[in-house]
Amino acid sequence: MPVPQTNFSPPFNITRASHIVITVRDLALSREFYTEVIGLLVTHEEDDALYLRGVEETCHHSLILREASGAPVCETLGFRVFQDADLDRAKQHFDAAGIETRWVETPFQGRSLRLRDAVGIPIELCATMPTLPRLHDKPHLQRGAAALRYDHVQCLAPDVAEAGRFYADLGFRVSDYFVDKPENDEEPLGMFMFRKNNPHDMVFLTRPGPQLHHFAYIVAEVHHLFRALDTAGAIGFERNLERGPGRHGQGHVFYVYFRDPDGHRVEILPPPIQIIDLDDAPVRWHSGNRFTWDLPPPKKWLHEATRFKDTPLRAPDVAVNLFSLEDYLSGAK
Amino acid sequence: MPVPQTNFSPPFNITRASHIVITVRDLALSREFYTEVIGLLVTHEEDDALYLRGVEETCHHSLILREASGAPVCETLGFRVFQDADLDRAKQHFDAAGIETRWVETPFQGRSLRLRDAVGIPIELCATMPTLPRLHDKPHLQRGAAALRYDHVQCLAPDVAEAGRFYADLGFRVSDYFVDKPENDEEPLGMFMFRKNNPHDMVFLTRPGPQLHHFAYIVAEVHHLFRALDTAGAIGFERNLERGPGRHGQGHVFYVYFRDPDGHRVEILPPPIQIIDLDDAPVRWHSGNRFTWDLPPPKKWLHEATRFKDTPLRAPDVAVNLFSLEDYLSGAK
Amino acid sequence: MPVPQTNFSPPFNITRASHIVITVRDLALSREFYTEVIGLLVTHEEDDALYLRGVEETCHHSLILREASGAPVCETLGFRVFQDADLDRAKQHFDAAGIETRWVETPFQGRSLRLRDAVGIPIELCATMPTLPRLHDKPHLQRGAAALRYDHVQCLAPDVAEAGRFYADLGFRVSDYFVDKPENDEEPLGMFMFRKNNPHDMVFLTRPGPQLHHFAYIVAEVHHLFRALDTAGAIGFERNLERGPGRHGQGHVFYVYFRDPDGHRVEILPPPIQIIDLDDAPVRWHSGNRFTWDLPPPKKWLHEATRFKDTPLRAPDVAVNLFSLEDYLSGAK
Amino acid sequence: MPVPQTNFSPPFNITRASHIVITVRDLALSREFYTEVIGLLVTHEEDDALYLRGVEETCHHSLILREASGAPVCETLGFRVFQDADLDRAKQHFDAAGIETRWVETPFQGRSLRLRDAVGIPIELCATMPTLPRLHDKPHLQRGAAALRYDHVQCLAPDVAEAGRFYADLGFRVSDYFVDKPENDEEPLGMFMFRKNNPHDMVFLTRPGPQLHHFAYIVAEVHHLFRALDTAGAIGFERNLERGPGRHGQGHVFYVYFRDPDGHRVEILPPPIQIIDLDDAPVRWHSGNRFTWDLPPPKKWLHEATRFKDTPLRAPDVAVNLFSLEDYLSGAK
Repeated sequence: MPVPQTNFSPPFNITRASHIVITVRDLALSREFYTEVIGLLVTHEEDDALYLRGVEETCHHSLILREASGAPVCETLGFRVFQDADLDRAKQHFDAAGIETRWVETPFQGRSLRLRDAVGIPIELCATMPTLPRLHDKPHLQRGAAALRYDHVQCLAPDVAEAGRFYADLGFRVSDYFVDKPENDEEPLGMFMFRKNNPHDMVFLTRPGPQLHHFAYIVAEVHHLFRALDTAGAIGFERNLERGPGRHGQGHVFYVYFRDPDGHRVEILPPPIQIIDLDDAPVRWHSGNRFTWDLPPPKKWLHEATRFKDTPLRAPDVAVNLFSLEDYLSGAK
Repeated sequence: MPVPQTNFSPPFNITRASHIVITVRDLALSREFYTEVIGLLVTHEEDDALYLRGVEETCHHSLILREASGAPVCETLGFRVFQDADLDRAKQHFDAAGIETRWVETPFQGRSLRLRDAVGIPIELCATMPTLPRLHDKPHLQRGAAALRYDHVQCLAPDVAEAGRFYADLGFRVSDYFVDKPENDEEPLGMFMFRKNNPHDMVFLTRPGPQLHHFAYIVAEVHHLFRALDTAGAIGFERNLERGPGRHGQGHVFYVYFRDPDGHRVEILPPPIQIIDLDDAPVRWHSGNRFTWDLPPPKKWLHEATRFKDTPLRAPDVAVNLFSLEDYLSGAK
Repeated sequence: MPVPQTNFSPPFNITRASHIVITVRDLALSREFYTEVIGLLVTHEEDDALYLRGVEETCHHSLILREASGAPVCETLGFRVFQDADLDRAKQHFDAAGIETRWVETPFQGRSLRLRDAVGIPIELCATMPTLPRLHDKPHLQRGAAALRYDHVQCLAPDVAEAGRFYADLGFRVSDYFVDKPENDEEPLGMFMFRKNNPHDMVFLTRPGPQLHHFAYIVAEVHHLFRALDTAGAIGFERNLERGPGRHGQGHVFYVYFRDPDGHRVEILPPPIQIIDLDDAPVRWHSGNRFTWDLPPPKKWLHEATRFKDTPLRAPDVAVNLFSLEDYLSGAK
Repeated sequence: MPVPQTNFSPPFNITRASHIVITVRDLALSREFYTEVIGLLVTHEEDDALYLRGVEETCHHSLILREASGAPVCETLGFRVFQDADLDRAKQHFDAAGIETRWVETPFQGRSLRLRDAVGIPIELCATMPTLPRLHDKPHLQRGAAALRYDHVQCLAPDVAEAGRFYADLGFRVSDYFVDKPENDEEPLGMFMFRKNNPHDMVFLTRPGPQLHHFAYIVAEVHHLFRALDTAGAIGFERNLERGPGRHGQGHVFYVYFRDPDGHRVEILPPPIQIIDLDDAPVRWHSGNRFTWDLPPPKKWLHEATRFKDTPLRAPDVAVNLFSLEDYLSGAK
């Protein structure tokens, strides 16, 4: 099987993808997009930063926006560990592995351990945040898609297998992977990895990387996708829709992809399937079983992404065959 | 057939049930209920009156709340006629029939003709109102159920057949009627009458009357019923739910019934079926085919209602057998 | 105003767009598409014809599929008149106007009057059909989108104003019309006309014509759009999606457009807004206010259509500027 | 805190509530109820037993119906352990604790370890089942509520704290608990416990027990609740609705409760909130914060339940104050 073996006794317990820090050039404009269209709640506000969470989330924040000039970047991808002691175990593990780490203090979250993963993505582990009440059943306080909770992040990497092995060693399982053609069994070109009980905490696609392709929030029902779109159309974000509404070929979920005012891509999706049992072996997708009714993605969805801060790009060794909406409309197969 | 024959060449053209005027004791409290839970928009506001419309409505108002001390009442039920000239034709018709009418001037609506129908209900005909933009596709301006439009009114009357004849003479058709038992064919105990393309503009039930049982607004989808309920629960109207969510036995629609802060009953329902063709003959419902899965209504839904202003009550000549939720729970049949 | 004046005392009473007859090359395949994806019910079946209706419809059929070799065509567009006597009034009217008519007998519908409208479209008027029970509240008998009822038809015509005048003389009102640019006020390039209480029974777009662009069925809620799409993807109609899900720029409704197995285009849409009052004047749309968040239509949606049987094409005199998805993706404005 | 302390290093790894075995008197009737109303799929069928799963489930079965005369009972509640080796660890653990266990072989599931929990409930642990494809995105194969997956079970127990300690020792966390009044802090009268990432795998209420109160399946969206109810109403299960649609007071989810043809209670609910972080401490509910808009449950929901096979009842030592719909309707507080 061309996917990495999961370490079922990982050195410490990562529980989920939990938060992300990105830079934006106009905090007020981004605030409007994320609160009115995506429907996040502002938990804390500073002159040059905004802390937001989904309406169901008790954690203080799942998205930090930092105002900065220059090209917008992603500063770090956050993951939760179960207990504070897991952070010490993580430190020991990475020390032993020769991976550089550093402790950082971020307002409104416990001590956090920063490092870069195998393909250079800056990640951060933390165990606690202050909590706030869930507001998922308070529609009078909700806007737009009323995004419930941060769910996963998708990254581009030049070597998906290499990236995957790093996370598999930390206990991540593979739910799904893509290969090019039905008949071959080479390296995966895409891989969904998870810790919590659904198919994705971290997803990799083979492309020049590392780059952030998108981060994703769960919404309650499919009509919330339309609610976000109508709001976007009504308040001036009508050209921020990039792809959808559609259903992902591998059957998980419906989706809508927006580009935020700085070009960061954010997905909203209704609750995906549950995966817990070991019986649920990784599912192999290829050109022959992957797509159902949705149209292929436009070229910019395939190729544009957010750079990670201070992180050089590397191109894949393999050529990836990407079929775009433009190809589809021109009659190509 | 125990329902009145429709006059297909009516003397003037009523197009729909269009608005209602009720009194309330605390305008601020009623404003909160109707804007936050039902989701109406405030079009105009005065010290002692509020004009509201549904988010889809272009007409200036479909609900007028007037602040008044004393027992809350309904002042008038409004109907639209198609053209201004229909008002003159209506005046002539009622003059000839010996029915007293008077012209009234109401802010934000064209000249209006007031009269009482055959069972004493104060009604009002008008042809025009100032118009405003539809906001049904602007979720960022919507609250609660985001009620789309005023749909129908249900009244209690001591003699449903008599009430129905008045409206049938004006071109109303009967979509449905109730009788007590499958085998008999006596006078209807309930009757749905319509002018626009759905089953109800005016509904009558046999009870002491005339009284206003409820008025109703259409919402876009069934999840809006829950959105109204969650909002009610969150902002202090948790005990204003009287009945539902359920599906009406005769198959038309899902429903939720609220009592407003003054006890006026308001229904919200998703879009009902379309009725246009003459082939769609009145449907007869009885104890044997009327109910599906919903539980029977509580006693207060069956018996409590809003009085019309300055209008005496009369009891029905027939005894009506009403099966309540209380009966059901106690094991009665 | 560049739209035709409605005759409010029409010579006879058309109530709604009611049915359509199209030819298909493989009746079994079309049956699967229309019953499993669109969710129509088969009311009657013959060796070479199928009669279908929506799950809410009491009328015997709203779609007749006739098996025929050769290029698929539309044989006739059906409209309902209110009473049987309206058919005689229609005959008299068209005789006087020098428009050729003929009585036809079609199984399962009353006598029907056939003629061609001002731009050559074959239409048919009828007053009655046998009726069947509504099944909108019987989900165990429903499939795919569970289409409720036939709603409207959209045609391509070389002269929209000419086409519109024909129907305006018969009492159709204009709900909306398109022009090219915000600043000019020339002939409309698109026009929505209605008799029943919503914005469309008959829609015209300026193109070579007459041709049938699409016919449309109402579905109950937006999730039914996805239900149709998932079904299409699951049973082999995954490439029959042409456009959507999206929201029409003029704010009426969400939509999905399919091409059936013979290329006939069918739209499904949730219930649109209600239009009854004369206050609701025709709304003028142009490039500056027409589009919200949805992506432009692909070229084939703009240009491909179904020919009417034995009906020659004529090109418009004006050049129409059509902005396609292909243009949008290539960065054109 | 009046809830048991979770053992975060449990002796073996239970991952979720996974299946249930109940007896029914008429297998054909139960089959119709569970497939047409709840929407389960039949995976395997024998003369006197039926194996069913939700449309999203890959596991062979989550519900086994066994035909048996006599009073319907629940034979066992099933839980999944993560790996087969967890079963051996469980055996060792219970042997050491003096708790009797036995291995059983059930068709279509790996070796299973049976025992009784601290309050006498017969439970069963297993690690594997044969798998089948997920069909959550195949609406053409779905019926009724199209239940996605088995979620949790609620039991009645004379001593909730005692029951809870058993499961807390096995790693279950408490998401929520009920006490009687806002001001006191005595023993919990209800307790939600979980292993997977939502608030409930096992729930206990203080009542004579042990008894099975209900088991629950997740549905995709709230409209599926109505779809189940409409189907029930259409095919003869119209009196099987016991409670709902409503929203649980503690804010988790909407619900509908059915009684199956043998009186077993089954809940359907849309996807609940996610709980993963340790920050999410148990939430305390009482009469002052527990209820929002939904009406209280009827007496039979409060008091009727399914007996476990060969399991004696014991009454609680404390008196529990239960407020019923009957109390509410009679004006009691």
